[in-house]
Amino acid sequence: MRSFGSDNHAGAHPKILASLQQANVDHAPAYGTDDWSARAEKAFQTLFGTKAESFFVFNGTAANVLALRACLKPYETVLCAEVSHLNVDECGAPEFFTGAKLQPLPHDQGLLSIETLKAALIRRGDQHFSQARAVSLTQPTEYGTCYSLAQIREICVWAKREGLFVHIDGARLANAVVSLKTTFQEMLTEAGADVVSFGGTKNGLVFGEAVVFLNPKLAEGFKYVRKQSAQLPSKTRFVAAQFLAYLEGDLWREIAEHALAQARELREGLTGLDGVEITRPTESNAVFAKLPQPWIKRLREHYFFYVWDEKTFECRLMTSWDTRPDDIRGLIRHIKELCV
Amino acid sequence: MRSFGSDNHAGAHPKILASLQQANVDHAPAYGTDDWSARAEKAFQTLFGTKAESFFVFNGTAANVLALRACLKPYETVLCAEVSHLNVDECGAPEFFTGAKLQPLPHDQGLLSIETLKAALIRRGDQHFSQARAVSLTQPTEYGTCYSLAQIREICVWAKREGLFVHIDGARLANAVVSLKTTFQEMLTEAGADVVSFGGTKNGLVFGEAVVFLNPKLAEGFKYVRKQSAQLPSKTRFVAAQFLAYLEGDLWREIAEHALAQARELREGLTGLDGVEITRPTESNAVFAKLPQPWIKRLREHYFFYVWDEKTFECRLMTSWDTRPDDIRGLIRHIKELCV
Amino acid sequence: MRSFGSDNHAGAHPKILASLQQANVDHAPAYGTDDWSARAEKAFQTLFGTKAESFFVFNGTAANVLALRACLKPYETVLCAEVSHLNVDECGAPEFFTGAKLQPLPHDQGLLSIETLKAALIRRGDQHFSQARAVSLTQPTEYGTCYSLAQIREICVWAKREGLFVHIDGARLANAVVSLKTTFQEMLTEAGADVVSFGGTKNGLVFGEAVVFLNPKLAEGFKYVRKQSAQLPSKTRFVAAQFLAYLEGDLWREIAEHALAQARELREGLTGLDGVEITRPTESNAVFAKLPQPWIKRLREHYFFYVWDEKTFECRLMTSWDTRPDDIRGLIRHIKELCV
Amino acid sequence: MRSFGSDNHAGAHPKILASLQQANVDHAPAYGTDDWSARAEKAFQTLFGTKAESFFVFNGTAANVLALRACLKPYETVLCAEVSHLNVDECGAPEFFTGAKLQPLPHDQGLLSIETLKAALIRRGDQHFSQARAVSLTQPTEYGTCYSLAQIREICVWAKREGLFVHIDGARLANAVVSLKTTFQEMLTEAGADVVSFGGTKNGLVFGEAVVFLNPKLAEGFKYVRKQSAQLPSKTRFVAAQFLAYLEGDLWREIAEHALAQARELREGLTGLDGVEITRPTESNAVFAKLPQPWIKRLREHYFFYVWDEKTFECRLMTSWDTRPDDIRGLIRHIKELCV
Repeated sequence: MRSFGSDNHAGAHPKILASLQQANVDHAPAYGTDDWSARAEKAFQTLFGTKAESFFVFNGTAANVLALRACLKPYETVLCAEVSHLNVDECGAPEFFTGAKLQPLPHDQGLLSIETLKAALIRRGDQHFSQARAVSLTQPTEYGTCYSLAQIREICVWAKREGLFVHIDGARLANAVVSLKTTFQEMLTEAGADVVSFGGTKNGLVFGEAVVFLNPKLAEGFKYVRKQSAQLPSKTRFVAAQFLAYLEGDLWREIAEHALAQARELREGLTGLDGVEITRPTESNAVFAKLPQPWIKRLREHYFFYVWDEKTFECRLMTSWDTRPDDIRGLIRHIKELCV
Repeated sequence: MRSFGSDNHAGAHPKILASLQQANVDHAPAYGTDDWSARAEKAFQTLFGTKAESFFVFNGTAANVLALRACLKPYETVLCAEVSHLNVDECGAPEFFTGAKLQPLPHDQGLLSIETLKAALIRRGDQHFSQARAVSLTQPTEYGTCYSLAQIREICVWAKREGLFVHIDGARLANAVVSLKTTFQEMLTEAGADVVSFGGTKNGLVFGEAVVFLNPKLAEGFKYVRKQSAQLPSKTRFVAAQFLAYLEGDLWREIAEHALAQARELREGLTGLDGVEITRPTESNAVFAKLPQPWIKRLREHYFFYVWDEKTFECRLMTSWDTRPDDIRGLIRHIKELCV
Repeated sequence: MRSFGSDNHAGAHPKILASLQQANVDHAPAYGTDDWSARAEKAFQTLFGTKAESFFVFNGTAANVLALRACLKPYETVLCAEVSHLNVDECGAPEFFTGAKLQPLPHDQGLLSIETLKAALIRRGDQHFSQARAVSLTQPTEYGTCYSLAQIREICVWAKREGLFVHIDGARLANAVVSLKTTFQEMLTEAGADVVSFGGTKNGLVFGEAVVFLNPKLAEGFKYVRKQSAQLPSKTRFVAAQFLAYLEGDLWREIAEHALAQARELREGLTGLDGVEITRPTESNAVFAKLPQPWIKRLREHYFFYVWDEKTFECRLMTSWDTRPDDIRGLIRHIKELCV
Repeated sequence: MRSFGSDNHAGAHPKILASLQQANVDHAPAYGTDDWSARAEKAFQTLFGTKAESFFVFNGTAANVLALRACLKPYETVLCAEVSHLNVDECGAPEFFTGAKLQPLPHDQGLLSIETLKAALIRRGDQHFSQARAVSLTQPTEYGTCYSLAQIREICVWAKREGLFVHIDGARLANAVVSLKTTFQEMLTEAGADVVSFGGTKNGLVFGEAVVFLNPKLAEGFKYVRKQSAQLPSKTRFVAAQFLAYLEGDLWREIAEHALAQARELREGLTGLDGVEITRPTESNAVFAKLPQPWIKRLREHYFFYVWDEKTFECRLMTSWDTRPDDIRGLIRHIKELCV
């Protein structure tokens, strides 16, 4: 069945899988010392600047929690949105890996405002209170919205002044770059972010994410952090080859443009339909909309998707690199039939 | 360059990679709810018995430390060989994930004897001392030897009596089954082992291992342990499809037989050569031999391998699913040239 | 300077200190095997019932986090008030010791309602979400209010049905027993609570708290938990002797009655004063009141106390076993002078 | 019954207890902001130099593991003697608190040699191996021996060169200072040690230890480490007052001299007795001797002591501040009766 459930319901992009296959020749050293890994390191530096240091890990949870291990001592805390994946979808992995506490904050459409962040910076120096040491922004957010370049810059400037690191949860980072018509370097490196969870799996890889340090001081000792956290792949060439296909030749842009275009198409198709209430700006590859409860079961006979809020029946409809115009047309047609 | 460094220097077996590719069709639910995962669960039960519960994880470190998280409370300890991978090659991952202590014990050719284990069971009930709660056996061991069926049974019977769980680190488990001419079920399930780290990556997969619980009580809550430990793959079909190719149709046997045959070939070729001292029984896919120091650099111009002991120049020569008769002949030829 | 800052600004009650001194004779075995400890264990059973198991620890943070270590696996979570000491005054100790996440909930005057608790029980069985496994109630609460017996019973019955343990943070537990005119046994054991942090330090001890298990299953292995958590006192007789003085002969009641009477006196004295707004019910040994900002500095020249909310200038005025009628009169007099 | 079991079987020294009592006046701020604590901080600086920073904790386990939390990241390791208290008597507390691994090393009479330490420094930079970052020396050792000043200096110089911190487990530190006829400052500060677990409980306190940082960089953020580790006493004046009595006026010296004199007396009394084999140098307050097994039960009817090695019947006889000449004479008399 076709799915709007998540972009990890899609398989691997053919070019990425082909690259993995091409790496399947002969012997290669393990644990990151192969040629593909060396080239992938360069590819990340092309995107993020020559000071960037990148480390492959297996999944998005790992990218997030290892990035935080690099930022936090156990008595410190990270400011994050209360709806952030970090806070509500990691089964306590951040606390488990870091020993630290999260400080979840109210959001607007998934976004943390600078005012909210400033107000959260309390009890500095009080030994009874976990000390804020990092901010985590999801870009694009869990609601498919994007921080503007100005917002990111403002938060980074403030964070630096306050001695906080800025972490970007970028499971779908390329989508934000395309949505904002910017570059990775401008959006993050130049803005002053410190470390990025760079998503692969949700963007067409078989598996694989990267922790990319823009602040090289945070990368000190990180190879041990990764190994001890059970995130050092042995046949690294197979992660690296996938990222090479994704990064070199701008396949990332092509994938993001496709997913975003499909989401826009879907939004347009739903706009104005009786009974459908679009609830969030569509700045990435997800459309959020409230649907009448009885429709949901019937639509799910044709397409899978998640009810995001069990009380309001707000649903998340997510597109991916392989969403077809036909999928969009089909879903809209089924909804229109229910509108009648 | 061809390598005898490790079986993870080999790539993926073509049949396994082909299966991964075949799974790359259409959409599939994530996080283990796909059809391939359901079939793989059955395949493990075919090998280990119908009570077995299997969980995919990304790598061998993860399989080991998550299996231990299921066995141990932080104030408990696992008895293991001082040379075990667990103790010397995981950068402290077992301690990090479990909060518990390892109790490393002397070994004979990588094997723990029942006498050693019994002698280690001290200070039971003493609140000042970490309480033994599990035994970890590597099968085949880090020195390429295998516990006999009788040894495993004896250890399991004793362990059960003492309230200890038995964990098997089986990064190359199929090799032991083939070497001992037994079955997974007879060697482990019937012997009374509780939980197995079942290796994939070193046996021809792109990536992927499984934690297989033979004692289903230990599996309670394990899905949360896995997720919190950042080891839940999202596109699970791609791990499952690889394991299906590996397990169904006995490809695991074919691979193990090949690797073992190559190791025997190598051992025979080295036997009796002047300057070469074979140091370990060859019961799996590794040959250990002391070589004169000056040879090592010259041999490594042609083949990569590890010096296992920097003081004695004992080297480890490891074969894999893709070791070619030519590789063996070539290595022996080069060594013979140095013998002169 | 006299202080309304906290009941830990008071020293030790003379009878308690005298008991400690009397224990200072000759040699005694360490680590809980002395006679005083055996008697104290019995004293706790007299209060809580014969199935109760008690363990001394050094401070209140320890009592709380060790009780939680006994209840929670790292992938589980405890429901607690967002203003609970556990959540905002332990510098992340709960997360550090348990590896688990807290789930902070909205409160009313420090109290969690059964409705709030029920609504918090979401995503059961969802591997991406930390699973609720315990409820922590502070009794009396951080705002000096008390759960009624009916409320505790209702929460315990519901918790049991849902497979949750109930933890009581009782740093000032005796005050609640006196305030509610009940007994420890009726209020907690019979109500169905599982484990109690039983406060000593804030009630007149030099140092010392106890973790009291009403559910003996939770006490299994707890001696190791305590030792590994660095909370096993060596000269246990000195903690035990203090608790003996506190528990035997109902000194706990005398102390609580005094502190509560002083708080009532203070509340009455403040009631109706211009500029003073009493903000919380006074059901324990604290009075909360908003004071005009300019008064605070001037009052603090005479008595120390905390501003509890820096925005509203709500202050906490806390009495203790040694608060003197003179202290109350003096404070009221100073406030009255400012009222003019 | 009189005990040679441990110096924590003794009670509190009367002068120390008297000082605690004298601090029991009026109100005092909690958590280290009282006057006694300020004076105690100075007393430590008098002993260790003006750069020393001291923090009270509750017990010896805590002093050790919190000192290590200040030194180690979870992927690092501490070199220690395999017989160290840290390794065999803390129920895994070091691993639990730090997440790190211990690297236990062979010893000679409890002492680590510089050669042993150098040989242990392997696999630097290898991501698969926990990286050594600290050395822990027990002074005096678990066998009652002392590192000489020259040995400490040599180890510290080497450690500094290798980027390792030096931790001193000094549960009975004053005994070493007296035994070596040196000062705290000369023995540790000038030698180059980084952090000291400074013992109180075993030397006459009711309870209380201190973590003393000689390297102030390690003390950064330590107040949070202590609080999060549940080791911040609230009524700090009562720990501080005890340490003031112990440190000011050289009571520590008097206590140590007494305990050492008693141990020497005991050793002399046992020397040359048939059936008694003294096994260790007596450089602190313990005498180790092998006794014939049948004697042990009979002696224990009169005096408690520990069998240190269940196989050889080596026993530990420990003196303390309150050991009386009569105790020594009595024990020797009983042994002589068994010699016959």
